[in-house]
Amino acid sequence: MDLKDTPTLEKMATTLRFLCADMVQEANSGHPGVAMGLADIAVVLSHHLHLNPKNPKWLERDRLVFSGGHASALVYALLHLWGFNVTLEDLKAFRQLHSKTPGHPEYQHTEGIEVTTGPLGQGFANAVGLAMASKLAQGTLGAAFSHKVYCLCGDGDLQEGVSYESASLAGHLGLDNLIVLYDSNAITIEGDTNLAFSENVRLRFEAQGWAVLECQGHNFLDIDNTLNTAKQSDKPTLIIAHTTIGKGALELEGSAKTHGAPLGAEVLKRAKEALGWAHPPFYIPEEVKLHFSLQRGEGEEKLWAQDLSAETKEKIAHLQAKDFSKVAYPVFELGQKCATRASNGVILNAISQAYLGFVGGSADLAPSNNTRLKEQGDFLKGQCGRNLHFGIREHAMGAICNGISNYGLFVPFCATFFVFSDYLAPALRLSALMQNQVYYIFTHDSIGVGEDGATHQPIEQLSHLRAIPNFEVYRPMDAHENVLCWQVALKRNKSAAFMLSRQDLEVASSANLEQVQRGGYVLHKSAREPQISLLSSGSEVLPCLKAAALLEAENIGVQVVSVPCFDLLLRQEQDYLNTLLVGEVLAVEASRGLEWFKFADSVLGMESFGKSGKGADLFKHFGFSPENIASKARALL
Amino acid sequence: MDLKDTPTLEKMATTLRFLCADMVQEANSGHPGVAMGLADIAVVLSHHLHLNPKNPKWLERDRLVFSGGHASALVYALLHLWGFNVTLEDLKAFRQLHSKTPGHPEYQHTEGIEVTTGPLGQGFANAVGLAMASKLAQGTLGAAFSHKVYCLCGDGDLQEGVSYESASLAGHLGLDNLIVLYDSNAITIEGDTNLAFSENVRLRFEAQGWAVLECQGHNFLDIDNTLNTAKQSDKPTLIIAHTTIGKGALELEGSAKTHGAPLGAEVLKRAKEALGWAHPPFYIPEEVKLHFSLQRGEGEEKLWAQDLSAETKEKIAHLQAKDFSKVAYPVFELGQKCATRASNGVILNAISQAYLGFVGGSADLAPSNNTRLKEQGDFLKGQCGRNLHFGIREHAMGAICNGISNYGLFVPFCATFFVFSDYLAPALRLSALMQNQVYYIFTHDSIGVGEDGATHQPIEQLSHLRAIPNFEVYRPMDAHENVLCWQVALKRNKSAAFMLSRQDLEVASSANLEQVQRGGYVLHKSAREPQISLLSSGSEVLPCLKAAALLEAENIGVQVVSVPCFDLLLRQEQDYLNTLLVGEVLAVEASRGLEWFKFADSVLGMESFGKSGKGADLFKHFGFSPENIASKARALL
Repeated sequence: MDLKDTPTLEKMATTLRFLCADMVQEANSGHPGVAMGLADIAVVLSHHLHLNPKNPKWLERDRLVFSGGHASALVYALLHLWGFNVTLEDLKAFRQLHSKTPGHPEYQHTEGIEVTTGPLGQGFANAVGLAMASKLAQGTLGAAFSHKVYCLCGDGDLQEGVSYESASLAGHLGLDNLIVLYDSNAITIEGDTNLAFSENVRLRFEAQGWAVLECQGHNFLDIDNTLNTAKQSDKPTLIIAHTTIGKGALELEGSAKTHGAPLGAEVLKRAKEALGWAHPPFYIPEEVKLHFSLQRGEGEEKLWAQDLSAETKEKIAHLQAKDFSKVAYPVFELGQKCATRASNGVILNAISQAYLGFVGGSADLAPSNNTRLKEQGDFLKGQCGRNLHFGIREHAMGAICNGISNYGLFVPFCATFFVFSDYLAPALRLSALMQNQVYYIFTHDSIGVGEDGATHQPIEQLSHLRAIPNFEVYRPMDAHENVLCWQVALKRNKSAAFMLSRQDLEVASSANLEQVQRGGYVLHKSAREPQISLLSSGSEVLPCLKAAALLEAENIGVQVVSVPCFDLLLRQEQDYLNTLLVGEVLAVEASRGLEWFKFADSVLGMESFGKSGKGADLFKHFGFSPENIASKARALL
Repeated sequence: MDLKDTPTLEKMATTLRFLCADMVQEANSGHPGVAMGLADIAVVLSHHLHLNPKNPKWLERDRLVFSGGHASALVYALLHLWGFNVTLEDLKAFRQLHSKTPGHPEYQHTEGIEVTTGPLGQGFANAVGLAMASKLAQGTLGAAFSHKVYCLCGDGDLQEGVSYESASLAGHLGLDNLIVLYDSNAITIEGDTNLAFSENVRLRFEAQGWAVLECQGHNFLDIDNTLNTAKQSDKPTLIIAHTTIGKGALELEGSAKTHGAPLGAEVLKRAKEALGWAHPPFYIPEEVKLHFSLQRGEGEEKLWAQDLSAETKEKIAHLQAKDFSKVAYPVFELGQKCATRASNGVILNAISQAYLGFVGGSADLAPSNNTRLKEQGDFLKGQCGRNLHFGIREHAMGAICNGISNYGLFVPFCATFFVFSDYLAPALRLSALMQNQVYYIFTHDSIGVGEDGATHQPIEQLSHLRAIPNFEVYRPMDAHENVLCWQVALKRNKSAAFMLSRQDLEVASSANLEQVQRGGYVLHKSAREPQISLLSSGSEVLPCLKAAALLEAENIGVQVVSVPCFDLLLRQEQDYLNTLLVGEVLAVEASRGLEWFKFADSVLGMESFGKSGKGADLFKHFGFSPENIASKARALL
C-alpha cells in the first residue's frame, strides 16, 4: 500500500464506507455513523497491522480492540477485506439470528475478534489488559513478544469511569505498547458532546502519564505520521483523531442521526451518486480487496516462529497448556480453624507454583484478600512479577483480567471484598459471555464481615452472580472444600468466583472431588431416616450441623447437604437430587436466597440489609444460630 | 474560635484524635489512621460550617459528606462535639449491634449524616449530586439557597471510576458551591499509593474544569486560608491537603498499619503520654466542647427563615410535600400498541407537571429512554431546567441522584438501557440501603432488545435487582400497567426501578390500582376451573394470554397471572396467593428467573445469554412463543 497514492486510498475508504452503510441498510438496524467516520483511519491502520488471517491466534499478532462495539459493521467489513473467515454472505446477514456477524462483536464467535465489546469503556480497559499481558509475555518469553495493542474508542468510552481507571493504571505502568485512537467526532446520542462533556482530554491523559498526539482523522498522511510517532513512544499513547461522524452521508454528515439508525435508502443512494459510486450494494472492487489484504501476515508469522528458541517454545507450550493437574494442594485437617480467605491464599500460592501463567492481585486489598503470591515478585513499570497491583479500581481490574485472559498465555485472578463485586459486575458479565478464564476472589462474604456494617455486607450478590449464565459461583464451607472447589473450577476451565469468609471456620467436611463436582452432597445423615434436609453453603453449614445435632437429640431424622456450588447442583439429574432433597427441605444461607426455592420448601435467608456489629452477634440476630435453624426445621414438620 | 489561638486548636485536635483512637480501641475494630490524619482539618472546618444541631434538616445548612466512610469514628466524634444527638455513650458503643454509631455512617440512622458512605467513590459523587440539588434549589427558590457542599475524600475515592465521572460533570456544570478536601496521605491498604497510582491529581482536576488548591493539612492557618479561597472560586474546587495518616500515633504515624486496625493499647498509651494527655479514655475538656459547639446554627437558621418570602415558603412546602396525588395520568386503551418506554415517557411528563421537584435525565440515551421532560428546559451551567444530562456516566448518574434525593427538595429519576444497570448497581444498592427516593428507568428490557445482541440484552439483571432488600422492581406488561405501576411506586415513597420494553406491546390489561398494588393479579381466567396458572411479567404476558387461548381450545382450564411487581407479590398473605397459584404453576419470563420457584412448579426462563437477531425471532428461538408456552404448560399436567 502506497500512502501517497491518495486516489487508491480514497477508493478503499469509499468501499469501506458504503459496505458498512449497505450492511446497516440491509439489516435495517445498526450504527453507520461511526463506521463511516472511521473508514479513513481504518485504511491507514490496515497498513500498520501485523495480523495473520490464516492464523487469527498467532501469538505475536498486534491486538486490535474496537472499544465502541457498535462499530461492528466496520469490524466485520475489515475482517472480510483483510482475508479472515468472514464472507460477503456473512456481511449480508449482519445482525441476523445465528449469523457470524452479530450486532456487537463477540469473542469466540467470529474469528479475529479479540474481545466482546459493546458495553462502553470495557474495550478500552480490555486493551490495557492485553498490553499488560503482552508485557508479561515479554518478561517471561523475551523480545519475541514486541507487538502493539491498538484500541479504537469514542467519546462514550472516555466518559465511562472504567476508562479513567484503566488509563490511570496504564500510565502508571508505562505501557508503551498501547496505542489508543480516540474517534473525537463531538457527537453522542443526545447530540453535541458539549451538552455533558467539556474536559480537556489532552490534559487529562497527560495527567495520567500518557503521551498525547492529535491528527486529522480524514487525512491519510497525517494519520500515518501520527501512528509512526506513537509506535516510538515510551508511554501509552492517545491519538486524538478529529473526525466527522457519518462522513460521506451528505446532509447527515456530522449528525447524531447517523449514530444508531440506517441512513435510509434515499440518502444512501444520493451519497453514492455524489461520489460517483455506480455499483450495486456490497460491491468491492478487486484492487481494493488486494490492497486491504493482510496475506503478508502468514509470512510474518513464519519468520517469527523460526527465530523462537527451543526454550521459548517450551515455555510457550507450558503457558498455553494451562495444565493444573500438577498442583500440590495444601491439606486441611478436620477440626482445624481457618478462614477460607486464608486457606484460599495458600491454595493460590500452590497453583502459582505449578503453572507459571497464573497471575493476579487485588484492588488494594491484597493483605485482606490474601492474594499475595509469595515468591512471584511484583508487576510494576519495568518489572515483570506475577503480583498485579490494580489500585482501588475494581471495575478496571475485572476488565483488565478479561484482556489478560483473552491474550491466550495467562490465567488471571483478581480480588476484592465480595460486596464490591457490584463495582466490577459489568466486566464479570463479559467474562461469562466471552467464556474466557478469569477467577474472581471475593473475600469478606456475608454478614460475617461484622463491624464494617451494612455497606460492606453482601446480601443480594450471591443471587446476582448465580443468575449469570455460564458462570460458576463457589462458596466453600471450610478450607477443605475450598481446595476441592479450586480443583473443580480449574478442571472446568471457565470463569468463576469464590466467596470466602473473613472469619475462621472449622474444617468439618471430608468431601471428595466427585461430591463437590456435583455442586452439593450429603455431608451428614442421621442414623434415623431423614425427615428434614438442611441445604446450606459456606459459613452457614456449620450451624446447620449443630442444628442437626439438636434435632437428632429430639429423635428427628435429619441430613445436612453442603452446596459449595449452586450452579453445578442445578445441572444434576433428578435421581441424584432425590438423594439430597429428602423429606422437608430447608435452605439456610445468609443471603437473599430466593433461588433456593428451586430445591427447598422453605428458605432461611436475609430479608433486609445487614448491620454493624460483631459477626457472632449478627449471625444470632439474623436467625442463623443452630437453635433458630432447628426451630425453623421443626416448624416444617 | 480564634484561628490564631494555636494552643486551643491543638487541644481540640488532640481531643478529637484520642477520642477517635479510643473509640476504635474500645470497639477493637475500625480505622484510626484517617481520623487522626484529618483531625486538624476537622477543627478548622468546624469553624466554617453552617449547621444547626437542633435541626439537622435545616434546608440552608452546608452539606458535609465524608466520602471515606471508614472515617466514621471522626464523623461521630464531631457530631457529638458539635452538639448533635450523638452521646458519649453512643461513641462508646461504636460499631456494636443496634448502636447509633455503625462501622460506616448511615443516612436516616444517625442524625447529621447526609449520605451513607463506605463503598469508595460514592460519597464524592453524592456530593456532586448535593451541589447540583443546591443549584436547582437556587434556581427554583432564589438566593436564599447559597450554602456550600463540602466533601472529604481520600486516595481510594479518587481512584474509583465514579469519582472521575462525577468530577467531569461537576466541572462541566461549573458547580462553584462544591469544595472537596482530598486527604492526600500517600498511603493505601497495600502500602504506598505509588504502588499503583502516580497521577498528577492537580492536572487531572484542572483538565476536568476544577480549581485546584493545596494546603498543609496539619497547619491550621493554611487550612483556613485555603478554605477561604475555595469559597470564592467560580468553579468546583479541589483542595489537596497533604496529611500524615495516623498523625500522633508515634512510630505508627504515616503507616498503612493505622488504616484498618486499632493502634493497640500500648501504642495509644505512649501516644497520649507523649502529648501530655493524662486523661482517661473518652475524655473531652469542657472548653474544647465549647469551642467545637455549633450552637450558633440555631440563630443562623432563624435569621435565614425570617428573610424567606411567602412565595418562597410556599414553593418550599410544595417541594417538600412530594405530593403526587394530583398527577393527570395518561389513559391507554385496550388494543393500543405502544412500547412501555414510550408510555413511560408520557407518564414522566405528566408527573413533572404536577410536582415541580421531579427532575431527571439519562446517561446520554434520552431519545431512546424517552425521558425528556418536554416543557422543563435543561440543567446546564448557569441554566436551571429540570432535564439533567448525565453524559455516558451511568455510575455517577446513580450516585448523583442519591445526592439529589437526600438533599430533601427533589425527587430524581435517571435512565439507561436495562443491561447497563450493572454499571450503576453500587449506587442503586445505596438508594435501597438509604431508603431514599430515586427512580431508575431501565428501557430496552430483555431479549426484546433484538439486533444489538447479547451484550445489550439483560438476563440476570431482574434476579439481581429483585434480590436487593428494600427496593422494588416494576415490569409492566403494557402501557396501562405502566401507569398503575407509577401510581403504586409514588405512593410507596421509596426507590424503585422500571423495566420497559423497546418494542411495541399491545395494551391487554384493564387492571385496577388495588390489583397492581398486590404485585400480581389474575388477568385472565378460563370459564373452566384452572388446572394451570401461568405467571408472567412484562412482554411475556401477552404470549401467555395467547398460550392460554391455545390450551382453552383443548378444553384445559387455565389462568394467566400478571406480576408487574414480584417484590410486592412476595408480601401478600397466603390466602391471596392461593387465588393466584391454582393448579400447576408455570412462570414465564425472558430472564434467568430462578426466584420464580418461590411461586412456581416450573419456570420457562433464560438459561443462556441472548443473541443478535430480530426481537420476534429471538422470542421464538428462546421458547417464548405461545405454542411453546402452551406445550410447557401441557407437560406439567
